[in-house]
Amino acid sequence: MTPERFSRITDMLNHRQPDLTLCLDKVHKSNNVSAIVRTADAVGIHQIHAVMPDRGMQVSGNTASGSQQWVQTVKHRNITQAIEHLKLKNMQIIVTNFSDKAVDFREVDYCQPSAIFLGCERDGVSAEAIALADKQITIPMIGMVQSLNVSVAAGAILYEAQRQRQLADMYGINKLPEAYCQKLLFEQGHP
Amino acid sequence: MTPERFSRITDMLNHRQPDLTLCLDKVHKSNNVSAIVRTADAVGIHQIHAVMPDRGMQVSGNTASGSQQWVQTVKHRNITQAIEHLKLKNMQIIVTNFSDKAVDFREVDYCQPSAIFLGCERDGVSAEAIALADKQITIPMIGMVQSLNVSVAAGAILYEAQRQRQLADMYGINKLPEAYCQKLLFEQGHP
Ligand SMILES: C[S@@+](CC[C@H](N)C(=O)[O-])C[C@H]1O[C@@H](n2cnc3c(N)ncnc32)[C@H](O)[C@@H]1O
Ligand SMILES: C[S@@+](CC[C@H](N)C(=O)[O-])C[C@H]1O[C@@H](n2cnc3c(N)ncnc32)[C@H](O)[C@@H]1O
Repeated sequence: MTPERFSRITDMLNHRQPDLTLCLDKVHKSNNVSAIVRTADAVGIHQIHAVMPDRGMQVSGNTASGSQQWVQTVKHRNITQAIEHLKLKNMQIIVTNFSDKAVDFREVDYCQPSAIFLGCERDGVSAEAIALADKQITIPMIGMVQSLNVSVAAGAILYEAQRQRQLADMYGINKLPEAYCQKLLFEQGHP
Repeated sequence: MTPERFSRITDMLNHRQPDLTLCLDKVHKSNNVSAIVRTADAVGIHQIHAVMPDRGMQVSGNTASGSQQWVQTVKHRNITQAIEHLKLKNMQIIVTNFSDKAVDFREVDYCQPSAIFLGCERDGVSAEAIALADKQITIPMIGMVQSLNVSVAAGAILYEAQRQRQLADMYGINKLPEAYCQKLLFEQGHP
């Protein structure tokens, strides 16, 4: 591995935020999934979660621009299992939803360990996830259309989280397990 | 037209921001264009600009979720023409670009009349636009991937603009020409 590549990967690892994640609740269009994984990488998320539709989830290599190599996807059979898993990690469960209980997405403290749930194009986040959530958030819409594309919504929320975490000086310190970093450096350094 | 629909359209018109726009510099993938038009509608943009690749621009109805009905697209032959047009409207020309001259996208004042230029997947914003720009902005990337999907980037920037304009109380006052509003109410009220 060249010294440049070594230092790029180490740098990336130093910015990873193990206590910030996404959960894709049956988001199945591959170009949306890919754009989301790419954004996750860009704000320092190293692992995302997905509840899979029957056919499984596809990342379109093109739209993801290689990011699927740097962001792990943990798959769950159903939404309850995913939420249990994340609650065990002490994450606050934040669901995107259009309801009276939802607050503006900028009002949430994303410096807390957080899992943000995104829903599918047609149905949104499932009722089960909404029932088990700690917080509901919404991105303000002041036009005629009712909702944003899911990858655009993910981007707006993740860049708010990145802004807050940058202000709080949460980047630049490696918080990942040493063994994981060594493995990744080994695998990705010798492609 | 039902009173509900009338009041929804009037409400939308009261939030439109004629002095905020986008210019798509040869962005040609229809699902990206559609997601961008949908986001533009959501933050109160009523007209966007596009420099077209030879084949013309296609909005995919599905991803746009009907927003193309509420956001006008002005087409330009080339980028110089587009910039001249926008400068005549006293807009600051803001290009997205990865360069030493680019500032963090949150450092710009979007309450000023602003046109934000987005580039295509492969080449980014054209050299001509960069040369004629007033400002260059970039969204911070702290992972391995070099750039975001263009519709995600558009969303992050537009929601920063929306946040600033909301704080400055710029929404809720109709700034569009009366004749345009009447025409739109007539056409869209009787589909
Ligand atoms: C197209 S939307 C789902 C629309 C669905 N018909 C509904 O009413 O929930 C797909 C996903 O994008 C995200 N999303 C879209 N617009 C959003 C907004 N304004 N605020 C928060 N999340 C949004 C959410 O995760 C949502 O589940
Ligand atoms: C995939 S990117 C273009 C990448 C191109 N290879 C380059 O180097 O410019 C497509 C468009 O998305 C927008 N974009 C993507 N990532 C961005 C970022 N981090 N900051 C600002 N704009 C971005 C810009 O408008 C860009 O022209």
